[in-house]
Amino acid sequence: MTIRVPRDDVADAALLADFTTLSAIGATPAGGVERQAATDADGQTRAWLGSWLTERGFAVRQDQVGNLFGLLELAPGRPYVLAGSHLDSQPRGGRFDGAYGVLAAAHAADRLRRHHRRTGRTPRYNVAVVDWFNEEGSRFKPSMMGSAVFTGAMPLDTALATTDVAGVTVATALRAIDGQGTGHVLDAGRDVAAYAEIHIEQGRELDKAGNTLGLVDSTWAANKYEMSVIGSQAHTGATAMADRQDALYGAALVVVALRELADRYGTDLHTSCGQLTVHPNSPVVVAREVHLHLDLRSPSDDLLAEADEVLRTRLAEIEVQADVSIQRRFSHTWKGQHYHPEGVALAAAVADDLGIGHQRVRTRAGHDSTNLKDVVPTVMLFVPSVEGISHAEAEYTTDEDLCTGVDVLTEVLARLADGALDATA
Amino acid sequence: MTIRVPRDDVADAALLADFTTLSAIGATPAGGVERQAATDADGQTRAWLGSWLTERGFAVRQDQVGNLFGLLELAPGRPYVLAGSHLDSQPRGGRFDGAYGVLAAAHAADRLRRHHRRTGRTPRYNVAVVDWFNEEGSRFKPSMMGSAVFTGAMPLDTALATTDVAGVTVATALRAIDGQGTGHVLDAGRDVAAYAEIHIEQGRELDKAGNTLGLVDSTWAANKYEMSVIGSQAHTGATAMADRQDALYGAALVVVALRELADRYGTDLHTSCGQLTVHPNSPVVVAREVHLHLDLRSPSDDLLAEADEVLRTRLAEIEVQADVSIQRRFSHTWKGQHYHPEGVALAAAVADDLGIGHQRVRTRAGHDSTNLKDVVPTVMLFVPSVEGISHAEAEYTTDEDLCTGVDVLTEVLARLADGALDATA
Repeated sequence: MTIRVPRDDVADAALLADFTTLSAIGATPAGGVERQAATDADGQTRAWLGSWLTERGFAVRQDQVGNLFGLLELAPGRPYVLAGSHLDSQPRGGRFDGAYGVLAAAHAADRLRRHHRRTGRTPRYNVAVVDWFNEEGSRFKPSMMGSAVFTGAMPLDTALATTDVAGVTVATALRAIDGQGTGHVLDAGRDVAAYAEIHIEQGRELDKAGNTLGLVDSTWAANKYEMSVIGSQAHTGATAMADRQDALYGAALVVVALRELADRYGTDLHTSCGQLTVHPNSPVVVAREVHLHLDLRSPSDDLLAEADEVLRTRLAEIEVQADVSIQRRFSHTWKGQHYHPEGVALAAAVADDLGIGHQRVRTRAGHDSTNLKDVVPTVMLFVPSVEGISHAEAEYTTDEDLCTGVDVLTEVLARLADGALDATA
Repeated sequence: MTIRVPRDDVADAALLADFTTLSAIGATPAGGVERQAATDADGQTRAWLGSWLTERGFAVRQDQVGNLFGLLELAPGRPYVLAGSHLDSQPRGGRFDGAYGVLAAAHAADRLRRHHRRTGRTPRYNVAVVDWFNEEGSRFKPSMMGSAVFTGAMPLDTALATTDVAGVTVATALRAIDGQGTGHVLDAGRDVAAYAEIHIEQGRELDKAGNTLGLVDSTWAANKYEMSVIGSQAHTGATAMADRQDALYGAALVVVALRELADRYGTDLHTSCGQLTVHPNSPVVVAREVHLHLDLRSPSDDLLAEADEVLRTRLAEIEVQADVSIQRRFSHTWKGQHYHPEGVALAAAVADDLGIGHQRVRTRAGHDSTNLKDVVPTVMLFVPSVEGISHAEAEYTTDEDLCTGVDVLTEVLARLADGALDATA
């Protein structure tokens, strides 16, 4: 098969220069970035991307939940092939997570634009770059919010009414960064022919196997819970131990129980509590209430269901042990899912044609592509992440791998724009 | 012995009315108050107290660390007998803790003032009411800050430079409520002849024994630690369990270990962690760092030292178990201490003369009197707290006990002003 848009050194250098520029926005001293959704730093990266796209002839539009699109009309009146990821980050997050995928999509789409201008050829579909709003879910929960609204998995109004810990809604926060469009941009069902995303791996498998490209063929299943442990406020010094209903003691038992659950099931279960908030959180007051966010993930739906049962039993024991009550306030679960095999095969063919070492991988983290694959043919690619570091400032991917990734994405995008996945349901 | 200032119904009614007024400032829906140190609500209670005292002829002065004094000159040029407690509260605290003691002191001193005006008699000492700044230590640590500075246990500059979680210093917060005087008011060593404080019990002993008055003869020893558990930030979904250095898992093990320590030593050891703060506290991020405040208290210095050793060993094990490091950032310890036996005897004599059931009690909580007793003869009194509820909105003491407490405090103050503890070292 012909390579449509061959790699060139000038494009590689431009990519790396742009990535350096982008990484300076919201930069942290230890080499990471802090750009939580709809903060000033997020707004700055979005503005930077918007200018970059506009200068190159993309029409920049924002939809009502803050997804930012750069539309490139190559085949007037036809649907779009979308490529993107997210510019928002975790608190003290890495500079590659999400941002690389958006920049890679922009560069790939721009290479395609120049190719078509040069050749005068018209592809079957138009191309668009997208920055999905609030993929990280650290400021506003849940994660993958923009792509969930886009694909219909979450109502727009629910997303806009979501508040951060300070009580600021998504709607207000988006307006503050001029990040909300007034109307509809693209309809997921009618206007999108396919979706492609590239991301750092957030694991060590590619690094260990020495392959540059991961072809994501499936996702881990996940259960996410929000819980409240309810006790009774008291004096830490004066109150007899037997009289205490210590919500923090109960919560600590939950955190320990989660780790014991993971120990029980080995590498096929990941468990954690990343967020835990104590009320009133005073050094001499026994806590009256603690809020926790629990996260259970597994490649096996069955194992996850079993772990959930074991945890439920343990929570009932903890209620007795700590004399507290535990309330499940919210849960968000998804089963292990497959990406379209035709998309995986397309990516494998591209990698083979480009001579790039690849392997199939299963993603443990969620991505915007997890939402997109439910409504359109989707290709999800990984490049290696050194030592698998993720959601941390030390996250690192080599320049060479960043450039190779864009090269693969460009070719995938070119083939998608020519209708390579048209037969895929 | 003669009762100097007999009880009367008008005074009781005025006390209860004032307590209702005071309790409305910073009131919470569940019947408590929220008036952390140097917040607007704390400023309002101080302003209210200042007006109350001024109207009755007290000279109101604030010192540089925000202690508020109401000076009543009965014996010109002579030292003062001080009585007071604190107006600040815990977050969602009870309305009696501290505030009752300040109001009781104000009413007792005012009864004494009227008595001396009526009789034309001059006591040996002057009398002053005091609201000690930041007894609770919830916003600014450590607790009992104002009395510590007053008695020389803490340097003024250290107190003023202390910051809350938002980074606001004590100095700035005090200025914001107009709560800082420009100079010296009283010198603990030279100007204070004795100190008296009344407080709710924060325990069930009086309630169980059916006595109205507790004579505090000693304090529990306490060890307070601030610790950091240091891990490494990572992705909750993607990072293999074996690669995690989860600071929150480590912290949870510490909280559980604390409870196990208390279980091991029975009723003679109280342990708790009331404050625990997670960084970055995002639901999909393994915590890189957790800060904890630990609190160990015992009537036995030896038992506390042994418990400290056991905890130290357990912390070293937890470092290995969770692959984290644990740093002790600050510790504040005090040994079990005795109040002056002469002060206890004086209070017992007053209670006997008034026909009030009393018993000796040991305080598990710290009080401003814990600082004062180190420099001046001190009397510490408790009134019952129903079910021993403390640092919680449901805290409750009956009107009758409140009035009886003020009656006892008035008589104690009268005798102190006449030099009853002059021989006490």
